[in-house]
Amino acid sequence: MITRLSQLFLRTLRDDPADAEVPSHKLLVRAGYVRRIAPGVYSWLPLGLKVLRQVERVVREEMDAIGAQEIILPALLPREPYETTNRWTEYGDSLFRLKDRKGADLMLGPTHEELFALTVKGEYNSYKDLPVTLYQIQNKYRDEERPRAGILRGREFVMKDSYSFDLDEDGLKKSYHAHREAYQRIFARLGVKYVIVAATSGAMGGSASEEFLAESPIGEDTYVRCVESGYAANVEAVITAVPDSIPLDGLPESVVHSTPETPTIATLVDWANGAELGRTITAADTLKNILVKTRTPGGEWELLGIGIPGDREVDDKRLGAALEPAEFELLGDADFAANPFLVKGYIGPKGLQANGVRYLVDPRVVSGTAWITGADAPGKHVVDLVAGRDFTPDGTIEAAEVRDGDPSPDGRGPLVSARGIEIGHIFQLGYKYTDAFAVDVLGENGKPVRLVQGSYGVGISRLVAVIAEQMHDDKGLRWPAEVSPFDVYVVIANKDAEAREGAEALATQLDHAGLSVLLDDRKASPGVKFKDSELLGIPLLAVVGRGWAEGKVELKDRFTGETTEVSKDDAVDTVIEKVRNS
Amino acid sequence: MITRLSQLFLRTLRDDPADAEVPSHKLLVRAGYVRRIAPGVYSWLPLGLKVLRQVERVVREEMDAIGAQEIILPALLPREPYETTNRWTEYGDSLFRLKDRKGADLMLGPTHEELFALTVKGEYNSYKDLPVTLYQIQNKYRDEERPRAGILRGREFVMKDSYSFDLDEDGLKKSYHAHREAYQRIFARLGVKYVIVAATSGAMGGSASEEFLAESPIGEDTYVRCVESGYAANVEAVITAVPDSIPLDGLPESVVHSTPETPTIATLVDWANGAELGRTITAADTLKNILVKTRTPGGEWELLGIGIPGDREVDDKRLGAALEPAEFELLGDADFAANPFLVKGYIGPKGLQANGVRYLVDPRVVSGTAWITGADAPGKHVVDLVAGRDFTPDGTIEAAEVRDGDPSPDGRGPLVSARGIEIGHIFQLGYKYTDAFAVDVLGENGKPVRLVQGSYGVGISRLVAVIAEQMHDDKGLRWPAEVSPFDVYVVIANKDAEAREGAEALATQLDHAGLSVLLDDRKASPGVKFKDSELLGIPLLAVVGRGWAEGKVELKDRFTGETTEVSKDDAVDTVIEKVRNS
Repeated sequence: MITRLSQLFLRTLRDDPADAEVPSHKLLVRAGYVRRIAPGVYSWLPLGLKVLRQVERVVREEMDAIGAQEIILPALLPREPYETTNRWTEYGDSLFRLKDRKGADLMLGPTHEELFALTVKGEYNSYKDLPVTLYQIQNKYRDEERPRAGILRGREFVMKDSYSFDLDEDGLKKSYHAHREAYQRIFARLGVKYVIVAATSGAMGGSASEEFLAESPIGEDTYVRCVESGYAANVEAVITAVPDSIPLDGLPESVVHSTPETPTIATLVDWANGAELGRTITAADTLKNILVKTRTPGGEWELLGIGIPGDREVDDKRLGAALEPAEFELLGDADFAANPFLVKGYIGPKGLQANGVRYLVDPRVVSGTAWITGADAPGKHVVDLVAGRDFTPDGTIEAAEVRDGDPSPDGRGPLVSARGIEIGHIFQLGYKYTDAFAVDVLGENGKPVRLVQGSYGVGISRLVAVIAEQMHDDKGLRWPAEVSPFDVYVVIANKDAEAREGAEALATQLDHAGLSVLLDDRKASPGVKFKDSELLGIPLLAVVGRGWAEGKVELKDRFTGETTEVSKDDAVDTVIEKVRNS
Repeated sequence: MITRLSQLFLRTLRDDPADAEVPSHKLLVRAGYVRRIAPGVYSWLPLGLKVLRQVERVVREEMDAIGAQEIILPALLPREPYETTNRWTEYGDSLFRLKDRKGADLMLGPTHEELFALTVKGEYNSYKDLPVTLYQIQNKYRDEERPRAGILRGREFVMKDSYSFDLDEDGLKKSYHAHREAYQRIFARLGVKYVIVAATSGAMGGSASEEFLAESPIGEDTYVRCVESGYAANVEAVITAVPDSIPLDGLPESVVHSTPETPTIATLVDWANGAELGRTITAADTLKNILVKTRTPGGEWELLGIGIPGDREVDDKRLGAALEPAEFELLGDADFAANPFLVKGYIGPKGLQANGVRYLVDPRVVSGTAWITGADAPGKHVVDLVAGRDFTPDGTIEAAEVRDGDPSPDGRGPLVSARGIEIGHIFQLGYKYTDAFAVDVLGENGKPVRLVQGSYGVGISRLVAVIAEQMHDDKGLRWPAEVSPFDVYVVIANKDAEAREGAEALATQLDHAGLSVLLDDRKASPGVKFKDSELLGIPLLAVVGRGWAEGKVELKDRFTGETTEVSKDDAVDTVIEKVRNS
């Protein structure tokens, strides 16, 4: 079917929308692909819907290819299953909750681990039924604190989520890798530049997990990678390279010094360099002790001490990921008042542990490292307090910030950071949800087997924004052939009746050849049409213009900008060839 | 792609679900098409989703064919537009309302008149842009008081809704008729038996409106039709056949009688037949006066008197439709106490009108009809009170029940009633929403033109239930080829390795010919497979069974039950031919 621009429900805008900051948002609005209805809630106009459906199609084809089966679960969900797994509460303000006319609690599904586990439990009961992978492509809902960048981070958005169920961990690993490869094919077909990074699993629970991040300076996720080795990780998941421990023999004794008015690392370093310790002291020689309180689900608040080198800050996201699923908070004045052994600015490992506070350190605090740190008394610090000799931490924690130049954990070079947009996430969930709902089948030996679950997501509507973001140029959108709303944009740029008929005939022939054709038959100037063609971003433009009188049609590649003239007799075949080869 | 039953996420059930009452609900659950998640909220398992997508495809093709353009608006909507049109309030408990983390009011869209009007206003500004018709296929949400019959009346359901915008009423009529014809094609392709009935427009506002009702004894909508003329109407929309008025000359004078203890029609008729009035009196000779109070949006409560022949009851649905959009309530004791002129059991037209109460009558109360009715005093009735002489009603109202045998309004025969399920509804909405949002474009003469809107809906998920309901037999589902999840169901009903290979080869050849094939390769008995094939309802069955040794394949038509044997060499061609001709 030929789509005529004269009748298409489309109005392009000359100006950027006032609320748009990133290029994809500006262009998708200006080109009439999407419209804002409420914060983080958008309409898809005809062209936007076509691109969205193309992305869906690619994802569906690759999911079907790995044997995943499509179903659809409701978006409107009862509270109970999420109550069972505690996610009704854990999701906090991000969950849209509502009540029905009878007062029953309902919610809008942010993700469906619970319901898929229950669905498999409802149908299957024998090991012979397994493995199975189910997926859906569906509207999801999250009440984001800061909806952002148009459809990039919406509150109503389209996601493909799939769930694998296996009899054992080996099966889970196979399902996980099948998804990993399917995702690589999906993003390759969509032309998205991305990186796979090690990730933490967050509120989802489970163990191994990787994120697919589209490379983008406007990304909200920071990741690091080692150019030499290819190691890449979300900042939350970076594992610190651990230095060798140092023999304790011959290390100087620790000495407590009077260090009045040195409650900060900077003042402490100043004092140390004036104290003739026989070496130059930097912040990295000091051990900073941070206190937080943590709470496991349903449990009591508990103090936790964290020791990190004084030249680094705590990264809240890394700390949160390390403590997951426990909540944490910084200490307030009331907490200090209730724990008088905490001497602000002079807290040390010994005082904490002597008072029963669990004490975790940065992985760099290995045995034999000597530190300048608090001595648990006002105006007192201790020098040469040696880990493994003078204090023994209760463990390590990945809470310190990651910096460009930090060594890669594989020891093959420095880490560099970049920003990305999460477009896919794969999890080896494990037993969190199948345990919660006792999802068992009868095993080969007649005993019940608990199933092990994987969870995998692709942000479909977000990908539309990501492709726009990565592919656009200063003139407008540029769609890869696989997702373009049309194969070819035929422009009538000549008022001559014969040229118009020629363009109509060209469009008809291309349509009959199975191509999707956008025909610009508007009564607008060629200049307006060319500008719109650049803004709309169809990969191939066929212009019936001035050259028509000489029997010429001009073809233009939206990506390269390259133009070629072909004779009108060859135009159909050349366009078909270009589309098929793109 | 061949779908193998051995791997399909499907378990059929032997027993009907406990909560199911109607055949389609029982069968769609037993055959593994849908599963209940919460009241009125269902999952679509693989086969169910395939049928749902087929119905969507048919609807989409017919909408595209009339030039409608597909877009998608959000399901999560802000309150404001619905506040403007008062539907935020008018929808009452049927609307799912929620708040976001900032306390803003949101709702789940039950229908999108407001948003489409705003969308057109946002893009178009010239008469040259019109007409335009937009549609979406999308999840809708209504908090039904009684979700029912599985997916037949759900709280989350899939609907196609479209909206036309025209410059004038003539244009609206054209758009309306284009939809009417598209709907006729849709329901014909789906094989649904239906009737088009005149309807009232309910909370939607607007004027002309028709419903497409699928004929079904389990339907919730009652409609009537005249077999002779073809007139059909939803009961709410039936127009009473009005008898000729009677000349007033020579009618007997009205006389007030003492009628002690006759507060009901039955006691009044008994009294009249004992009072020697010179004729036999039936309930149809009495005029029953009912009092309600009505309230227009935002207005005060107001008394309304309604006079109907004593042999009929008031039909609350008809009364509600007649008063729309005003609310109404029956009078309580407090209302009677506040209005002492209302003498229960003895209320008459004269007392009502004398006290300023608006008084509407059934259309049968024409000028010259004489009635026995209340005389506004305890134990008093009046005989021969003549309409148009002794009292003049303030108008007529369609509030009395419709009965089988009532004359058709076109005078061509009696009405008979039947039950149906609403599957489509078309409205000439008019200006309700375009007025609310001032949806104007610049007219040809340079002056603004207010657009006129139509609204049209098809219940996509409901149609799956309706087709199941109309087509099933006592063995299971029966899908028309157009919506069947597969073209053909190939059964391996022979354990012989060669037969199995032959079935696989048959399935592969059918697949290559472009047919969708369900291959029953399970290790189950032929009996189990045949039973499931009947339950699942694929229209054509190809059995590789006992006959295979003699080179025979059995083909079975699920609708007629007819079986034919074909040679295995002809099997592929015969199946393809049968599918193409179905």
